Amino acid sequence: MADSLDELSARLLAFARARDWEQFQSPKNLAMALAGEAGELLEHFQWLTEAQSASLSPEKQRAVAHELADILSYLLRIAERLDIDLIAATHEKIAINETRYPAARVRGDARRASDYQD
Amino acid sequence: MADSLDELSARLLAFARARDWEQFQSPKNLAMALAGEAGELLEHFQWLTEAQSASLSPEKQRAVAHELADILSYLLRIAERLDIDLIAATHEKIAINETRYPAARVRGDARRASDYQD
Amino acid sequence: MADSLDELSARLLAFARARDWEQFQSPKNLAMALAGEAGELLEHFQWLTEAQSASLSPEKQRAVAHELADILSYLLRIAERLDIDLIAATHEKIAINETRYPAARVRGDARRASDYQD
Amino acid sequence: MADSLDELSARLLAFARARDWEQFQSPKNLAMALAGEAGELLEHFQWLTEAQSASLSPEKQRAVAHELADILSYLLRIAERLDIDLIAATHEKIAINETRYPAARVRGDARRASDYQD
Repeated sequence: MADSLDELSARLLAFARARDWEQFQSPKNLAMALAGEAGELLEHFQWLTEAQSASLSPEKQRAVAHELADILSYLLRIAERLDIDLIAATHEKIAINETRYPAARVRGDARRASDYQD
Repeated sequence: MADSLDELSARLLAFARARDWEQFQSPKNLAMALAGEAGELLEHFQWLTEAQSASLSPEKQRAVAHELADILSYLLRIAERLDIDLIAATHEKIAINETRYPAARVRGDARRASDYQD
Repeated sequence: MADSLDELSARLLAFARARDWEQFQSPKNLAMALAGEAGELLEHFQWLTEAQSASLSPEKQRAVAHELADILSYLLRIAERLDIDLIAATHEKIAINETRYPAARVRGDARRASDYQD
Repeated sequence: MADSLDELSARLLAFARARDWEQFQSPKNLAMALAGEAGELLEHFQWLTEAQSASLSPEKQRAVAHELADILSYLLRIAERLDIDLIAATHEKIAINETRYPAARVRGDARRASDYQD
């Protein structure tokens, strides 16, 4: 994992330990917390047009940055609890997607994998 | 941002561009996709006990790693679209949380910030 | 609660009991399952424009109807477990919203409650 | 649809119209709002044990009831926009689940459909 991600992950673990919060941080609970933050992220965008979502006010931009931070924090905590190398897993998953969605075939056409049929 | 996160982010951008998918990747749509992946993560854990969620079978562990990868991927895409430095934002947010949840006060007691009252 | 909602709720309870699944259906777990279904709902819409989301193909329409059904099912299960009258709670909440968002003030302007400031 | 659900749905439509909010209520946006509320529901339960989630304080019980109300409200709005009969769709989906999860086979064993293999 990256130096800076490692550093973040260590800081988050220290934060949890200083508060005796590791006891609450099962992968199950952390997944809920992550999904809760994803819900907060949605709330920032739900009544905006796509174009508006791409040009936020500085205040909104900062609020969104903090939601992304919360999501990354829970992601790192889950990865630590389950001993998952997040960077390696993501490269692996991208490689899978490169096979699943060949550029020549899906160009300009974004659908769920399950919506593609042969 | 970290070297390895930068590299991941660049790979994800190249993946999207090769498929002409940037047109679909407004922050709004990416937030939905991220939340959809968070939902898939939940589905792995919803009927497990907390203890079971901490000791997954290798097969399940790999599936969970790929869900985390999907979430990180959308997180990086949103950050790129909105020009947010994810690592810096997360350090900033942790600093805020350190003030909001003083270790001496919240030790062993995890609640929503809104559930703490003075 | 409505006759037809009562009937649905009873059918869902019988379904769970016949499978000995009540043991898994804590409010916590049911909330996760509901959020997982909400994530599946998002996945149907994430790459569509708003206009496209309002005119689905018959096949997609049916798939969305079934996602809504799953969400309603978990909603009814949680309400049953916590002894909440869903219809009464919703009327109560609408009354609160009528006060919180006075028509004269918010006309044509949809934002999060927290985004309105005075 | 049930009398009382019909009545709720009509009240919610009137609420939206009085505020000129129908313009924002595309199925896509409503799905996001619903998922956002599902995220808020999760936040009530994420650090509780399953047992704690089943015996809430009166104050928390009321807050949860209002989250369920928000979810039902968005569910009814989506169903109205897409002309879906929520009660009929749910009975249809339960019938499918009765076939997919035969009681004799899955008794006491709750997993994702995709986790069952033949």
